[in-house]
Amino acid sequence: VTGEIRTVAIVGLGLIGGSLARDLAAAGVRVLAHDRDLGAVEDAMRAGVVAEALPEDMAGIEAADALVIALPVDAVAPWLGSHAPRISRIPLIMDTGSTKTSIVAAAERVGIGRCFVGAHPLAGDHRSGWGASRQGLFADAPVYLSPTVGTGPDALGRARRLWEMVGARIVEMDAGEHDRRLAWTSHLPQAVSTVLARVLAEAGISPGELGTGGAGMVRLAESSPEMWSGIFQENAADVGAALTKMEVALGALRDSVVRGDRAALREGLAAAREWRVGGPGAPVDG
Amino acid sequence: VTGEIRTVAIVGLGLIGGSLARDLAAAGVRVLAHDRDLGAVEDAMRAGVVAEALPEDMAGIEAADALVIALPVDAVAPWLGSHAPRISRIPLIMDTGSTKTSIVAAAERVGIGRCFVGAHPLAGDHRSGWGASRQGLFADAPVYLSPTVGTGPDALGRARRLWEMVGARIVEMDAGEHDRRLAWTSHLPQAVSTVLARVLAEAGISPGELGTGGAGMVRLAESSPEMWSGIFQENAADVGAALTKMEVALGALRDSVVRGDRAALREGLAAAREWRVGGPGAPVDG
Repeated sequence: VTGEIRTVAIVGLGLIGGSLARDLAAAGVRVLAHDRDLGAVEDAMRAGVVAEALPEDMAGIEAADALVIALPVDAVAPWLGSHAPRISRIPLIMDTGSTKTSIVAAAERVGIGRCFVGAHPLAGDHRSGWGASRQGLFADAPVYLSPTVGTGPDALGRARRLWEMVGARIVEMDAGEHDRRLAWTSHLPQAVSTVLARVLAEAGISPGELGTGGAGMVRLAESSPEMWSGIFQENAADVGAALTKMEVALGALRDSVVRGDRAALREGLAAAREWRVGGPGAPVDG
Repeated sequence: VTGEIRTVAIVGLGLIGGSLARDLAAAGVRVLAHDRDLGAVEDAMRAGVVAEALPEDMAGIEAADALVIALPVDAVAPWLGSHAPRISRIPLIMDTGSTKTSIVAAAERVGIGRCFVGAHPLAGDHRSGWGASRQGLFADAPVYLSPTVGTGPDALGRARRLWEMVGARIVEMDAGEHDRRLAWTSHLPQAVSTVLARVLAEAGISPGELGTGGAGMVRLAESSPEMWSGIFQENAADVGAALTKMEVALGALRDSVVRGDRAALREGLAAAREWRVGGPGAPVDG
């Protein structure tokens, strides 16, 4: 069958790459893998997830039907630049990062636009690394697919099939639109959790003093600093705009609190509640 | 035995009052209860949790060894004002609200300071009402006890025993100190979740578009608007100060994002992470 997926190379066996390797191996796919942490690769081979380790220079990667680069967002473009000649004949190349614009542009720039599809599975949580990876992570999770200007139908078809194999729900979305939306749905919540944790730390509060609700608000603060500083940098304009809106809205609430405006407080809380429970105030999915 | 707890009156069968009624009934205590929602009282009687319904004028409440007023914070002082003569002989009277200063002051004002202990179990979540109540809610949860200037040792001893019966961990704390601390550990996280939900709603995002992490950040936005507008109003000065710190810290993060200052971003994320995981950057519990 044209476009079959029998051998997949995965670079980076963290939460996303590792979980993808587990699901693909469970589906009968032969997984080749590289990680700078050799222990992770050894663990994955012992677990029967990875069939073959790829060396630093990626010799042997040409055998893959698909390549998934599961590295922090700012590591993807340099990796593509270094390895473009060797990977240019692989029929499908994807990344898995939380920003898409600059990565899709880098793929076009190094001449692999035809076989490249930017991918972003909205899965995972505050944990990271091979130790956090697990089978079934992508079941029913959305995966955003952002093609380049020149992505071929064969590459896009393979990309859809690969993510369908692991149970993800495919959402095709232009890279720019993806980054604008994810600034709200993912990057802003992460930033807010981090900032809340810092503010509590400065106030001398320890995490153990928080109730269930408060503890849930700082869970994301445990996320990987390396990964997230890259995401914020890559999506600076959109994240900056979202943060500004958050500051303004916090200021408005503070104003109601300080003025003792009970009606405004009740109204603001009720509007938030209605949105969250999908009541009449909930916006239609745009 | 002096100070035994055999009959407890509970006013308000919501998440807190209802759960307390369930635990006490399970421990063999006779529970008398009132709720403006007669259906909740009927359900609680059918469930064998409430032995007797108290009428609007609270006739019969004098039989209780302890009275727990589990109403929204701003409803407690008016309730005490209306019912002070009838309840003045009950050996222990407590509320369960998230703010303590004004409630403790109200108890002193109406002349029941000797038998009054302000109580705040840090339990529950975004849910509310009798339907959300459950047995075991207070197991291992902190309960803050704030005495009045004149709370007698008998009342305080009873309060400790009552909360120990339901498995709570007792933390005695002056009412003012309680409100200053809770502004950070509980009221600020609630405010931030509400504001984040409103910002996402305004950006046209629907709750279903959020990943696991983002969804966890807006869960508290589902909390009762009536209850929380009262808490924000009662603790306006401390909550206002906490919100100001949050705005300033968000502005600092935005500044790092917009300047593309990777080192500052990484450092801020790492500091938040260390605090959350209890690493070397974690403050000592004050």
